[in-house]
Amino acid sequence: MRIALDAMGGDLAPREQVAGAIFAAREFGIEVALVGPPDAIAPELTKFPKTDRVSIVPASEAITMEEDEIVKAVRSRRDASINVAMTLVREGRADAAVSAGNTGAVMASAFFVLGRIPGIERPALGALLPYNAGRVFLIDAGANADCRPNHLLQFAQMGSAYMERVVGVANPRVGLLNVGEEAGKGNELAAEAHERLRESGLNFIGNVEGVNIHKGICDVVVTDGFTGNVALKAGEGVADYILEQVRGVIRSSPLYVSAAILLKPALRRVLKRLQYEEYGGANLLGVNGTVVIAHGRSDALAVKNALRLAHAAAGSGLLDTMRASFVRAEEESTAAGR
Amino acid sequence: MRIALDAMGGDLAPREQVAGAIFAAREFGIEVALVGPPDAIAPELTKFPKTDRVSIVPASEAITMEEDEIVKAVRSRRDASINVAMTLVREGRADAAVSAGNTGAVMASAFFVLGRIPGIERPALGALLPYNAGRVFLIDAGANADCRPNHLLQFAQMGSAYMERVVGVANPRVGLLNVGEEAGKGNELAAEAHERLRESGLNFIGNVEGVNIHKGICDVVVTDGFTGNVALKAGEGVADYILEQVRGVIRSSPLYVSAAILLKPALRRVLKRLQYEEYGGANLLGVNGTVVIAHGRSDALAVKNALRLAHAAAGSGLLDTMRASFVRAEEESTAAGR
Repeated sequence: MRIALDAMGGDLAPREQVAGAIFAAREFGIEVALVGPPDAIAPELTKFPKTDRVSIVPASEAITMEEDEIVKAVRSRRDASINVAMTLVREGRADAAVSAGNTGAVMASAFFVLGRIPGIERPALGALLPYNAGRVFLIDAGANADCRPNHLLQFAQMGSAYMERVVGVANPRVGLLNVGEEAGKGNELAAEAHERLRESGLNFIGNVEGVNIHKGICDVVVTDGFTGNVALKAGEGVADYILEQVRGVIRSSPLYVSAAILLKPALRRVLKRLQYEEYGGANLLGVNGTVVIAHGRSDALAVKNALRLAHAAAGSGLLDTMRASFVRAEEESTAAGR
Repeated sequence: MRIALDAMGGDLAPREQVAGAIFAAREFGIEVALVGPPDAIAPELTKFPKTDRVSIVPASEAITMEEDEIVKAVRSRRDASINVAMTLVREGRADAAVSAGNTGAVMASAFFVLGRIPGIERPALGALLPYNAGRVFLIDAGANADCRPNHLLQFAQMGSAYMERVVGVANPRVGLLNVGEEAGKGNELAAEAHERLRESGLNFIGNVEGVNIHKGICDVVVTDGFTGNVALKAGEGVADYILEQVRGVIRSSPLYVSAAILLKPALRRVLKRLQYEEYGGANLLGVNGTVVIAHGRSDALAVKNALRLAHAAAGSGLLDTMRASFVRAEEESTAAGR
């Protein structure tokens, strides 16, 4: 297993990227190809004992321009580190690509270099949330702001395949994020998507309200990328708020400070599950290759965990499963003259 | 100040409604009219010392049928407690109405009995979130699943008027809930609403991401009712999750239990701010009267706080401000031939 890591993508690149690669290579026994300018990467690499598992693949710098220029930059700068990482995947020289660069740039590069799996209309971002003993996969977490009901159906199919192949959940339960439990609830998109999902043959359990995302009642939560992104980030915001408030009241009295010191290891365990560093990143599903997009602020731990996510997905056969089922669905619908 | 309370609306009605009314009358010096069947209300009322401030206004039972029958039931059963409460407001015999009944039923009753403020296309639910030293007003929190850009502009105007008149924030900062900070970001609705807000004359600070709702960077967060409801409830879900996890790890060791006992008053303070019981309910803005919709599971504390919200709104002059500004806007747009 060899994973291409965009060594220049992310706020703390290449330092944390190199460290994360080293840790992942050690811990998961994988090879990591650090993609970027050797001049920038080599000095970081020499800080660690030499290993055959981590190598450098030369490329020019990361794409770091203004938002509206990104797609153009990705298309014109073939030698950009993210494009070279995707090319390694396309050519079979890497099993997956990981980047903590700008999400728009990574998606554009994946579309441009790898392309979509035939039959999939819209690739989507799937986030494996760290809640519950089991885990819940939120899709789309932000790739597609405006969606049609058929897109949500495909997100559900991709999410279901992910939970089955990568996480090992048999017959994953799929819920539709909505504002109420009854079938007719929600906006037009949700009401129509509900019908599609009901007829899909998936293990559809119906609508799931925001308050129940984390309650373990389903394995996949389906929504459009606008709502999904807001839901995910609103949850992060509340978590930030609670932690800040708890810190504030604890600091208000020496007695609280002493008690809190005793509780620290316990609280740290809770915190650890909540932090994005621990879950690593989002899976870009629907493109013709395994791609994980890590948080822009990723440190070495987050990079390591993004590599772990990519490792799990690439080793699972997910891509072959999706290629087979979506291509078949497309052939059937073509044969049916639709 | 006299507030009409739907004594039959809510899972714990009429017991908690009556207790909440008594507490609110004592604490805020207001009068509360308990609306519902005297047979059901009187036995609860006799549990408390007699007071002139809390009275009974007879009505038949609450509307508690299936979701799809609600609007019809509200229209046909004029004597339902929620309709009688709204009628007291329309006739000037109460200054506000409060109900913990089904949100759809309360909204339908408010539209039917009170009507909209002329010029307002869509009444909306505004939730005053308990975060930050200052507070943030999320609108629409769930009344309108499908919206057009002009609706979001009106939500912003109503939210801004609320924060100015009721909470006392001068020149409230308005943010648009979105998936990124740049102007062109988001779905079609958000991108178009951004333009409207920019030209609105409101104190528009731009897009606000989900993670920043609670950071105190704006006073009003505007969004459609689908996204708003999901954002609000996803946040509640994460709060539930954290509290449950913390409880779990604390129970895992006697040392943690002892430390937690010391910390209890501190943690309770944080918890208190987070719980809906403390903030009471959502304001239905845009109808021709002051209406607060409390959580269906409201206990006496939540009912008391919903009455406090209604008291604050009714005493603020908000309704007159909104009537004047929206009627004027409508006249101007009619005069301009639009």
